[in-house]
Amino acid sequence: MTNWNEIHRLATTWVKEAGERIKASFSEELTIATKSHRNDLVTDMDKGTEQFLIGKIHDHFPSHRILSEEGFGDDFADVGGIIWVIDPIDGTMNFIHQQRNFAISIGIFHEGVGKVGMIYDVVHDEMYHTISGEGAYMNDTKLKPLTKGEVKDAIIGINATWVTSNKRIDPSYLAPLVKDARGTRSYGSAALEMAYVASGRLDAYISLRLAPWDYGGGMILINEVGGKTTNLKGEALMITPQTSVFVARPGVHEEILQQYLNSGNW
Amino acid sequence: MTNWNEIHRLATTWVKEAGERIKASFSEELTIATKSHRNDLVTDMDKGTEQFLIGKIHDHFPSHRILSEEGFGDDFADVGGIIWVIDPIDGTMNFIHQQRNFAISIGIFHEGVGKVGMIYDVVHDEMYHTISGEGAYMNDTKLKPLTKGEVKDAIIGINATWVTSNKRIDPSYLAPLVKDARGTRSYGSAALEMAYVASGRLDAYISLRLAPWDYGGGMILINEVGGKTTNLKGEALMITPQTSVFVARPGVHEEILQQYLNSGNW
Repeated sequence: MTNWNEIHRLATTWVKEAGERIKASFSEELTIATKSHRNDLVTDMDKGTEQFLIGKIHDHFPSHRILSEEGFGDDFADVGGIIWVIDPIDGTMNFIHQQRNFAISIGIFHEGVGKVGMIYDVVHDEMYHTISGEGAYMNDTKLKPLTKGEVKDAIIGINATWVTSNKRIDPSYLAPLVKDARGTRSYGSAALEMAYVASGRLDAYISLRLAPWDYGGGMILINEVGGKTTNLKGEALMITPQTSVFVARPGVHEEILQQYLNSGNW
Repeated sequence: MTNWNEIHRLATTWVKEAGERIKASFSEELTIATKSHRNDLVTDMDKGTEQFLIGKIHDHFPSHRILSEEGFGDDFADVGGIIWVIDPIDGTMNFIHQQRNFAISIGIFHEGVGKVGMIYDVVHDEMYHTISGEGAYMNDTKLKPLTKGEVKDAIIGINATWVTSNKRIDPSYLAPLVKDARGTRSYGSAALEMAYVASGRLDAYISLRLAPWDYGGGMILINEVGGKTTNLKGEALMITPQTSVFVARPGVHEEILQQYLNSGNW
């Protein structure tokens, strides 16, 4: 019988320790490498944090598998057993340019089902976390179930990329949403924006291209508070190599899917 | 002879005290009124903070005039003498929905020339401040002069509104910028986004419709670190009832103005 409370407790300890290491690095010079995609910066701290977390997981849970951005993790063949989906620093560009607006994200799945979700806003020292079925929290404060909302009252997390010419979606689908919503925001960290949806600070978050480590922790958190977690076709989010992501409070999700995304028939 | 150091010192004290009052309010229920524009929420805290600041200014500097959002300030006929341009809570919607990503902004002008600039990120306890000609600071850390940059490396603060159909600018001007820049962000507080430009966390910030209290403090800060502060036609920013705002580090400003805004001939 897996002890999820113990896994949650250890993960919290490790993520907080990783956060301390990251904060300590702000005074140091960061060596920045450029990955294939020019928007995708990777730093020593990214790699170091991942190695730190992977080392801890392997030591304590040798049978668990790990799926992570920087590629130090295990191969990912099927969703059997327990899989940790981790992003050591989600929002690397913010980390480099701003030393804020980034997060450590962890989602732990059992046979493909989300069990523990964790997003740590290092600079704010805000830990969003859940054990599935036992409520979601920001630090010690329980997050409220997400109530039903409407687009006209909603603040939507969406990057300008998706409402201007791009490779993934005709901008005419989502551009009207910018006008109809109460406002839009873009923070540059999918994990943080999903934590904001879970805590009601944003009413929806939309991205056309995310990897599982970007959304793994967030989807577990949002599911726990009664939010909707799908792709832009309205299909349930799963751990898959790359997908669109559309998460929102109830009401707002259905309205955007039907009125703007044409029920996913685009 | 005006003692700007003393004005700066007092303003800092008052703004920090106002910040404490705002933080203390987070646990209280906020009574929210809707202003004429539905995106423009105003709260008791907004009004209370403004009254607090105006009271302090009037008590200590009875000859100074005040220009402010909530309308408790003095009439604004000309730019003679000393004018405080204040926004008690810039980013009211964020304040209500997020209890973060808002700021207190103050710009103090003498005969129309910026002398003291102050933007206080209440939640982060980060005070961006300057006495013109004496350097700009984030708390006690001196801000570095802004170096020359290029659009391809730039993170641009711009709301999706300005690259989709809107009343103020043909979206085809700025939409290509979304593709060409390294990234875009939108935080929902002009003052905070201008503080980010001053501190190098954003490389540019663009808005088509701002009032003086939104940008008064920010333009003084950005000027002090060698950034460019103009409207979208490339004309120097001044205290005027409403204007477009385009602030950026050197290089990025010229490139956007010439390559995207057609040197302001739109």
